[in-house]
Amino acid sequence: MAINTIEWSDGKLRIIDQTLLPGEYCVIELPSTESVWHAIKRLQVRGAPAIGIAAAFGLLVALKEKRPATGAAARAVVNEAADYLATSRPTAVNLFWALDRMRRALDATPKQSSASEIEARLESEAIRILEEDRERCRAIGSHGASLIAPGSGVLTHCNAGGLATADYGTALAVLFTAHENGVPFQVFADETRPLLQGARLTAWELQNAGIDVTLICDNMAAQVMREDKVQLVVVGADRIASNGDTANKIGTYGVAVLAHAHGIPFYVAAPTSTIDTALQSGDEIPIEQRDREEIVRWKDAVTAPEGVAVYNPAFDVTPAKYIAGIITERGILRPQFNESIAAVMKAQQVGSG
Amino acid sequence: MAINTIEWSDGKLRIIDQTLLPGEYCVIELPSTESVWHAIKRLQVRGAPAIGIAAAFGLLVALKEKRPATGAAARAVVNEAADYLATSRPTAVNLFWALDRMRRALDATPKQSSASEIEARLESEAIRILEEDRERCRAIGSHGASLIAPGSGVLTHCNAGGLATADYGTALAVLFTAHENGVPFQVFADETRPLLQGARLTAWELQNAGIDVTLICDNMAAQVMREDKVQLVVVGADRIASNGDTANKIGTYGVAVLAHAHGIPFYVAAPTSTIDTALQSGDEIPIEQRDREEIVRWKDAVTAPEGVAVYNPAFDVTPAKYIAGIITERGILRPQFNESIAAVMKAQQVGSG
Repeated sequence: MAINTIEWSDGKLRIIDQTLLPGEYCVIELPSTESVWHAIKRLQVRGAPAIGIAAAFGLLVALKEKRPATGAAARAVVNEAADYLATSRPTAVNLFWALDRMRRALDATPKQSSASEIEARLESEAIRILEEDRERCRAIGSHGASLIAPGSGVLTHCNAGGLATADYGTALAVLFTAHENGVPFQVFADETRPLLQGARLTAWELQNAGIDVTLICDNMAAQVMREDKVQLVVVGADRIASNGDTANKIGTYGVAVLAHAHGIPFYVAAPTSTIDTALQSGDEIPIEQRDREEIVRWKDAVTAPEGVAVYNPAFDVTPAKYIAGIITERGILRPQFNESIAAVMKAQQVGSG
Repeated sequence: MAINTIEWSDGKLRIIDQTLLPGEYCVIELPSTESVWHAIKRLQVRGAPAIGIAAAFGLLVALKEKRPATGAAARAVVNEAADYLATSRPTAVNLFWALDRMRRALDATPKQSSASEIEARLESEAIRILEEDRERCRAIGSHGASLIAPGSGVLTHCNAGGLATADYGTALAVLFTAHENGVPFQVFADETRPLLQGARLTAWELQNAGIDVTLICDNMAAQVMREDKVQLVVVGADRIASNGDTANKIGTYGVAVLAHAHGIPFYVAAPTSTIDTALQSGDEIPIEQRDREEIVRWKDAVTAPEGVAVYNPAFDVTPAKYIAGIITERGILRPQFNESIAAVMKAQQVGSG
């Protein structure tokens, strides 16, 4: 199920245009920083890890585009592009995480470095971010796969699959790995209004992998749970606070409350780069509000009366109390998350330090 | 806000084609029993009370269509048409209730009645069903309006408005009446996938009435509740069992669980004709399964990968324990519903006997 969601070759950044799936599978080149910004904004590339990777390569695109003559000019181009790309989407912490990491790599280059030396250094850093994401996804899959009992049902929301990452996904990595291990199970995929990432992307990825997937509307999740068809919920994350509160696609919080009411364990799968230790709780996570047009029409079809007021938050925050565990590349974190998150982040600093 | 959802004049049955709203406001004639069956099946006319009324007039349409020469032939036409129309949708009890009432009116005609005498009797019965529905909707509105506190937020799901009844709605009658009484409040309307009755019909009706309505996707209801924007939930019903368990549009059960988790009172608004005393509990209510096409495409736009499995229950059952009250034309029924329902049904028999 490896998908080249983001591809960097011959100094060119290419992505799968996810707004066209599943009708069209189309790989597009992003030749300018502006095109990278718009691709993130318009969700042509989406999913917290994938956004971070795209933004990291976006800095390389800026250098290719501007062709600065000196090291100082190159630094200015990179910093300006990083500031700009950080404004594309406000909720995904991986975006800032990846850009910060690229800035640190930039800062670590010797003062006298030429533009091409800086570019080479940043290119290897971006490639490393992508490679590490691949490894993290595989590790998340390995850690989480044992949660799926043979013959059970798993519900997921939105798309935390290969299309949301470098290749293998977070929530879906758990499913892909269990499937590769020969475990039989059934998946219910919430379609995930308004942009239908569940219907368009998750159903497509799981179907391609040969996994038994059934598409439902978001408002059917409660009924499917009541009919005892679901024994596990796994979703991705866009940002996780120090206490485990988790921002993810709108609708995730509702699914968590419903899972709780039905006694079904609810898991979040995300790399530790999604954890934002600067935040004490989910209350501090800014929630992106998106355009009304996403709700009142689908392609050319109008779905609501003209001029009607619309509320369109792109994310919600699931309080830690509803989360049974956070599946990371370093193992499954358990409540109390304040402690387990602090421990894993500390171990990581030691490990990478 | 009176809407001529169903119109009977000059011996012709006309309905608003609700599948075209809000883009087109189109009144169509149903010239044959078959066209009535299809209009109910395809949701051109929908909502439990409206389905019952349409089916009652559908028997008149059968008589106009077949023009039986004798009283015996007329009886055969009516009975055959009633059997046929009862197969159009399995969950709405008002369909069977209205057809049974028409059969009783038929059975009450003298044996020697001519075809035209039978037709006249059935016509007056169908008109009475429609008129009574109007009165019931107004009474439901009056009883429920006091539940809306000035400045509060109300969430509703699907469409239990004028378009679902003869003219004024059930859940929406409560809102229309409060609005007429000068109470300021805000409504959040779930769009209600897959057929978007909330977006297309409820938002349209409320907007036309000048009520402050905000459209949300179904998966945003939890977030809106968490943000303390909702103090009351009111929905309609397709069938209510003796114990208060309520079948309504898919997604209603999830909203009820979420309302419960947020401490928000959840009300059902429905005429007593929606109560099916033959059922001990909601477990006995058959749930209509609908076509996959409703989920995988919207008009011409494909929204899911080809061939993906789909689960599409049209209704769910909300257990009585989540229901604060059932707003009927005879007042608000309170738990324990076994007792309050038995009392109102008994009073009704005495009243109508």
